[in-house]
Amino acid sequence: MKKIGTLLLAMCLALGACSTQSTSTVQTNDKGTQWEWKNGTIVVKTPERPAGQQSVLGLTTPKMEVVRVGFVGLGMRGPGAVARFTYIPGTQIVALCDYEQKRAEACQQILKKASLPKAAIYSGANGYEELCKRDDIDLVYIAADWLHHFPIAKCALENGKNVAIEVPSAMNLKECWELIDLSEKNRKHCMILENCCYDWFEMNTLNMAQNGVFGEVIRAQGAYIHNLSEFWDYYWKNGEGDKLGWRLDYNMRHRGDVYATHGLGPVAQALDIHRGDRMTTLVAMDTKSVIGKALVEERTDSTCNNFRNGDHTTTLIRTANGKVIEIQHNVMTPQPYNRLYQLTGTKGFANKYPVEGYALDAAQLSASGVQPKVDDLSAHGFMSDADMKALVEKYQHPILKKYGEMAKEVGGHGGMDFIMDSRLVYCLQNGLPLDMDVYDLAEWCCLAELGELSMDNGCAAVEFPDFTRGEWNVVKGYKHAYASPEDEAASMEKAKAFTAKLKEQGAKEWAEEGK
Amino acid sequence: MKKIGTLLLAMCLALGACSTQSTSTVQTNDKGTQWEWKNGTIVVKTPERPAGQQSVLGLTTPKMEVVRVGFVGLGMRGPGAVARFTYIPGTQIVALCDYEQKRAEACQQILKKASLPKAAIYSGANGYEELCKRDDIDLVYIAADWLHHFPIAKCALENGKNVAIEVPSAMNLKECWELIDLSEKNRKHCMILENCCYDWFEMNTLNMAQNGVFGEVIRAQGAYIHNLSEFWDYYWKNGEGDKLGWRLDYNMRHRGDVYATHGLGPVAQALDIHRGDRMTTLVAMDTKSVIGKALVEERTDSTCNNFRNGDHTTTLIRTANGKVIEIQHNVMTPQPYNRLYQLTGTKGFANKYPVEGYALDAAQLSASGVQPKVDDLSAHGFMSDADMKALVEKYQHPILKKYGEMAKEVGGHGGMDFIMDSRLVYCLQNGLPLDMDVYDLAEWCCLAELGELSMDNGCAAVEFPDFTRGEWNVVKGYKHAYASPEDEAASMEKAKAFTAKLKEQGAKEWAEEGK
Repeated sequence: MKKIGTLLLAMCLALGACSTQSTSTVQTNDKGTQWEWKNGTIVVKTPERPAGQQSVLGLTTPKMEVVRVGFVGLGMRGPGAVARFTYIPGTQIVALCDYEQKRAEACQQILKKASLPKAAIYSGANGYEELCKRDDIDLVYIAADWLHHFPIAKCALENGKNVAIEVPSAMNLKECWELIDLSEKNRKHCMILENCCYDWFEMNTLNMAQNGVFGEVIRAQGAYIHNLSEFWDYYWKNGEGDKLGWRLDYNMRHRGDVYATHGLGPVAQALDIHRGDRMTTLVAMDTKSVIGKALVEERTDSTCNNFRNGDHTTTLIRTANGKVIEIQHNVMTPQPYNRLYQLTGTKGFANKYPVEGYALDAAQLSASGVQPKVDDLSAHGFMSDADMKALVEKYQHPILKKYGEMAKEVGGHGGMDFIMDSRLVYCLQNGLPLDMDVYDLAEWCCLAELGELSMDNGCAAVEFPDFTRGEWNVVKGYKHAYASPEDEAASMEKAKAFTAKLKEQGAKEWAEEGK
Repeated sequence: MKKIGTLLLAMCLALGACSTQSTSTVQTNDKGTQWEWKNGTIVVKTPERPAGQQSVLGLTTPKMEVVRVGFVGLGMRGPGAVARFTYIPGTQIVALCDYEQKRAEACQQILKKASLPKAAIYSGANGYEELCKRDDIDLVYIAADWLHHFPIAKCALENGKNVAIEVPSAMNLKECWELIDLSEKNRKHCMILENCCYDWFEMNTLNMAQNGVFGEVIRAQGAYIHNLSEFWDYYWKNGEGDKLGWRLDYNMRHRGDVYATHGLGPVAQALDIHRGDRMTTLVAMDTKSVIGKALVEERTDSTCNNFRNGDHTTTLIRTANGKVIEIQHNVMTPQPYNRLYQLTGTKGFANKYPVEGYALDAAQLSASGVQPKVDDLSAHGFMSDADMKALVEKYQHPILKKYGEMAKEVGGHGGMDFIMDSRLVYCLQNGLPLDMDVYDLAEWCCLAELGELSMDNGCAAVEFPDFTRGEWNVVKGYKHAYASPEDEAASMEKAKAFTAKLKEQGAKEWAEEGK
């Protein structure tokens, strides 16, 4: 009997072991993300929202007569942002921070040139912590290197500051979820500084799409195709031993589309992502690394056998409403700059590179309120310049109407940077939701890790987490927020008055300094 | 004891069932293909080569002074092919076959116009069987509807005939493997009539790529983006009850890129597929069907809830050598025609649509044997027309040099059809391997079913079968075959003499008929 008992026991244990084997095994990748296989698809774990914490969909903060800004990161993008803000009324540049004191100090000259008072200077590895603790800052504007985007933003949010973060604003899922939690918990804005959403063709085409000019948009493309061969060595190097610079180093260590937001931002808006649709499935595929590997070998004079980022990465995304987004990344091989911006609709087509064009037939152009110059206009070719001009005139985006002229003068990637900053300030001044929320940030920045998961597992399908945790279908359709004409005029008046006074003060201070 | 015995038995069975559950389960799709999951990737079963059967890599057939042709399928593409052949010396159009006798008869007029003798006429559902049995035909040229491509080819090969099949030449994996077996067993050519391989930009760019102008080509694109809205109703309908026509019907019933070859053919050649590299992994992703569904509903006056082919399908393919191929398919939404032909190389870039262009820097253009017109030429933009003209002149493909002028006169998609047919005849006359073998046919035609497998399983990765069954790396580099100048001249002389005599005979016959 004892023998049989032992046998029975053994069988029970075997059966038990067998049962657990047939359930999925949760794995953890090198970024700490838990995931498992479910019917051939990789599913990442979605962290539960802490009790009591609420979503920041449509978040607004109280109107600000003056937006007081601290800039952190004054290397390649930062000083340009400081300069642009000197043109935006109702702002105050309170503090400037960079790892290197000289770079922060140098930006005082930008303020001087604009007759604005000096800012407080912070520097060193932890200078931003002091900046974030100030009680006279509303917005921390972050343009540091990628690895510092998150730590600085975290510090700012924890200190009750709104943040705007250069791209990519989060480097992995963990950072995405933490920023979401910080934004939700502290009820502060956490915005991705995605300038490409504000470029001319993208804004006008968005307006057309939202007005049905292309019918239902079922597919969209974006990319960052920009050969950076001349730029790599301009990125800050951490001392003599750093042969690569932080950007090349990052590309070497990480697989996946690490710079997806310029491509994905504008099309995500056109497709109402988390405003009626959501990204559900991702697959990614990269080429081997040939140029990346060579760049490292040139600089280190030794063999590089593990350049993780393929020279050209392609990511495909399917949405809940059956649409497809394609995003490409190539910063390595020689070819013309291309963000691949393209919308494919059931009634028309829009494409930006290499030549801007729209394709609609006569009936659809007419239905869109524009009389075609020829009766037999078809969508088999791009419309004439004359027809395109008329179409763009009719559908010029109100935001371009408002800021476009000044943006072209102020500059910054042709002006789109200025429009982005202007909208950020406008929304804060008028107590409106920002054009991009923290869920956009997460959605546009997660392609890197999700793509890496896909490709490290044979290009498997990966399920997108729902960063809104259930609210992706609450808002119906992406919209920019606007104040009433009266409110807008009132806040602009106050803004201008403030800035005029500030410039007087600044002029006096600089004059005295001159003596 | 009996109770315990029963219990033990039950546990043994449970344990046994459990063990088999943890091994892969082979599944069979609706096309009869067996497949199974392996670590998140779908692997299809590769049938073993029958004993004694050998590969047809590099297959040649004995020289033919005259290529005697039977045409099967004289609807939309067929008559054009008959017309083109009347310009090719050393051919004899022996037989014409179509389901509908009138369509076959109508092609006699093409022969009359060229002063060539009448052909034998076959018609009806099984007319092609009689044609295939003739002992005076070397080549059966198939331009029937897609569903008849395989049955006619099978019949021809079984009857010892070489075959050339319009695209897509096989509709699924089963047909791919059967054509391979038939070609290998009967030692006859089985060629895919992929005309896009012979278009000007593609041929010249191939020549450049093969000569290292772009460095190592690591990525390539192709597509069939062609809004067929005006064409659907021209496809043959099987009686009054057929509201859709065979092409729309096929698209309705099948998911995946069902028309991949125009896009894939030219780039597969540029990437030496099964001549040193091979396609290993495929993922596909489609949009929902909006237009397709609407087309069916318009024609049937009832709801269509299962239009299988998404309006826009994207397929990504990775190769053994770490390259990526992207192929797109959209025959539904309004937009300009686009085959997306593009090569991305480590030293340069080529793109065809919407405007033909090359991007190389001055050093690379110079290294390619062309003096740049400007010293500071960079790859950040497309080169000038002048530089492009010089580059194309230097690398004009020998095949274009030989056939280009005449092709433009004879016509057929701008001439590429004529070049394709000319090369087919040239290789047969000179006893050379054809430009495309049966493995190309299978590789270019399998995207439909592999893509369907991927998408019906959440866009899972699918492993490509090796259609060469182990010989993908035997030949190093894709090459067109050429006879020696002497042999070429000799066979051309015989060909011209034959055709001249045939035209005399034809003129006589038609004159007598006229009486």
